Amino acid sequence: MANFVLKGNICYSENLNKIRIIPQAYLVCIEGESAGVFRAVPECYAALPVEDFGESIIIPGITDLHVHAPQFAFRGLGMDMELLDWLESHTFPEESKYADLGYAKRAYKQFVNHMRRSATTRAAVFATIHAPATMLLMDRLEESGLVSYVGKVNMDRNSPDILCEKSAQASLADTEQWINDTKTRYKNTRPIITPRFIPSCSDELMHGLAALAEKYQVPVQSHLSENLGEIQWVKALCPKAKFYGQAYENFGMFGGKSPCIMAHCVYSGDEEVELMKKNGVFVAHSPMSNSNLSSGVAPVTKYLEAGLNVGLASDVAGGCTENMFRVMADAIRASKLRWRLQDQAVKPLTIDQIFYIATLGGGRFFGKVGSFEPGYALDAVVLDDRSLDHPQRLDVRARLERCIYLADDRQISAKYVAGNRLF
Amino acid sequence: MANFVLKGNICYSENLNKIRIIPQAYLVCIEGESAGVFRAVPECYAALPVEDFGESIIIPGITDLHVHAPQFAFRGLGMDMELLDWLESHTFPEESKYADLGYAKRAYKQFVNHMRRSATTRAAVFATIHAPATMLLMDRLEESGLVSYVGKVNMDRNSPDILCEKSAQASLADTEQWINDTKTRYKNTRPIITPRFIPSCSDELMHGLAALAEKYQVPVQSHLSENLGEIQWVKALCPKAKFYGQAYENFGMFGGKSPCIMAHCVYSGDEEVELMKKNGVFVAHSPMSNSNLSSGVAPVTKYLEAGLNVGLASDVAGGCTENMFRVMADAIRASKLRWRLQDQAVKPLTIDQIFYIATLGGGRFFGKVGSFEPGYALDAVVLDDRSLDHPQRLDVRARLERCIYLADDRQISAKYVAGNRLF
Repeated sequence: MANFVLKGNICYSENLNKIRIIPQAYLVCIEGESAGVFRAVPECYAALPVEDFGESIIIPGITDLHVHAPQFAFRGLGMDMELLDWLESHTFPEESKYADLGYAKRAYKQFVNHMRRSATTRAAVFATIHAPATMLLMDRLEESGLVSYVGKVNMDRNSPDILCEKSAQASLADTEQWINDTKTRYKNTRPIITPRFIPSCSDELMHGLAALAEKYQVPVQSHLSENLGEIQWVKALCPKAKFYGQAYENFGMFGGKSPCIMAHCVYSGDEEVELMKKNGVFVAHSPMSNSNLSSGVAPVTKYLEAGLNVGLASDVAGGCTENMFRVMADAIRASKLRWRLQDQAVKPLTIDQIFYIATLGGGRFFGKVGSFEPGYALDAVVLDDRSLDHPQRLDVRARLERCIYLADDRQISAKYVAGNRLF
Repeated sequence: MANFVLKGNICYSENLNKIRIIPQAYLVCIEGESAGVFRAVPECYAALPVEDFGESIIIPGITDLHVHAPQFAFRGLGMDMELLDWLESHTFPEESKYADLGYAKRAYKQFVNHMRRSATTRAAVFATIHAPATMLLMDRLEESGLVSYVGKVNMDRNSPDILCEKSAQASLADTEQWINDTKTRYKNTRPIITPRFIPSCSDELMHGLAALAEKYQVPVQSHLSENLGEIQWVKALCPKAKFYGQAYENFGMFGGKSPCIMAHCVYSGDEEVELMKKNGVFVAHSPMSNSNLSSGVAPVTKYLEAGLNVGLASDVAGGCTENMFRVMADAIRASKLRWRLQDQAVKPLTIDQIFYIATLGGGRFFGKVGSFEPGYALDAVVLDDRSLDHPQRLDVRARLERCIYLADDRQISAKYVAGNRLF
């Protein structure tokens, strides 16, 4: 692995409330990690090659903490309904197609191409119940240079015949085989245990998945407290649990021993928040999806103040795009509407906060990721924003702010993951 | 003017709740107007040249019913505040720069280039208080081929020294001169009387502007019921008016004799709605701006049910982009959050409704605009959506839906305004 220096206008989160901006600075990469940001190249690195990106802005790569690869095919379609109807009418029929490896190959190629060109460097990905198509997706993601966790989905109840595993035992056997097949197969791609959500998984399946997570030391991802109808359903299915998160906890699938991502958390109450904090559960905040499916708006700043781990998520295809800049702008707007329409006790997100969540907040699930402080993985996105033209002078901070509202892959001129240049 | 035929997948609003889709059809243009859409070219048009756009989608041009040209320079900046603070800190300082024609030339060139490449074919535009820069903007818009109303803004009170006209008389004299200079100067560009909003305009100025509107038969545009602080301020300034709209009405500036656009209408009560209906006032719905500035969400479907004229607006730079597709998707999302968080009596917008608002709803301000029915101006946008790739077959309706969520200028391969091809 090459050592090198990147030069440009460097931005990363100093803390939750402050983006650090270092104009015309040098970011040193040693063996895939940042050795720090400097105003001049230190003597000890003077021999390294310097890639000068001029006036471009260099930010840490973004983590998409929750995205459904098979749903990319129908992004932007069928959004005039709520979660449970949308799953039945759009999601399940589309996901059932991934039994066909030829279809999966065409579809996942498109998904991975878009992800590769995006600002996302790391992702936690849902596949489908089909192990072969899931491995195909993992192969493509590995080739892309992105770092990802990918989950073969588990569903053994309340699912249509076309997308329902035969039994808890069959689902568990498939999953264990798939973990064995993929656990050490890749450099950048890892399996993650992925029960769709409690309504789709029998108690036996949930207990079995918890055992697999522990046996193989694999993390877990699922959905939590997204939609009011869903929450009522879980209450009926798990009468012993006081709240939705406790149902996962009772199965042994809510953080603690196994790292865990829960998507949405729109309606998590105080007890659920407390348990997430205690267990180190990551919230995958999915604002665009939560608006598209009329779910609501998660009180993100409240979660941040409570000290939860919060990352940002596209949640394609509840969200309609893999472009995390657009998701960031949407997160801010949704938080403002929540403040205005629902609860002025929960402050709207600021630019600094959403930048933190999108980089460090979700990056942390992958270890030292999402910052340019020494020791962090050198994930970097280079933004050439000249096409976002303006007549006045703008400082780097203002230009970054504009990128958050307006950038897409046209502004991404280079991308590095753990020191490897993808393009 | 050439007569011709366009071939492609043609979509336009049959009514508020239905998009008409005619795959592989022929749209006939005679002297700048649609002669209708046909499944085969009628005998009488058989000699006309046919431009075959293959599988592309052809939709009516979109009307942006409220956009601030001088604010384009700071789109996506400084959104972490509400309206009145944002005006003081960002808008007024930026608009004051347009006293400098050199600056205006650079800035307006960028604005017009972006508008020309967008899906917008018609626009109602705010300039600044400066007549020379406003005329320069009108020159550039005329050259672009777009059709627009452009307003020199009036402000004679409660405004910073750098952006305040010296007196009502001076403002009126400038405005009358500017109307005389521009009323018949252009083919596609017309002046529109533009008091910024009541807090910025003295009673004397408002009465004088109403007289000018009547004398020269010029329409009017302004802002209405956008923000709670603003509404309180107007109440204090106009104690005789029962509601904000009545204050405009008392000055003779609220539709009726002079066509009128009011931007925002987030908080219009029943009496205001009734008066807008009686007077034919157009609502310029600005969802992205209303979220960015934490204003709230206008109850659009309620206005539609009440029979109001409703168009869609980017409201740059309250809104951060001129891309009306993104504004359409934002409108739907905001209406869903309003439904979820505030009031389930007001239904969310559907795809069909937002398409109607963006084309026919706002187009109507310009006459027979926004449809392909015979007699409508031939404003058309050709969408080549192949870059929005997908593995499955999608019908034209689904592809259009995806364009609303995802398209930008990359998908616009041709654009016509009143039968003239812009690119």
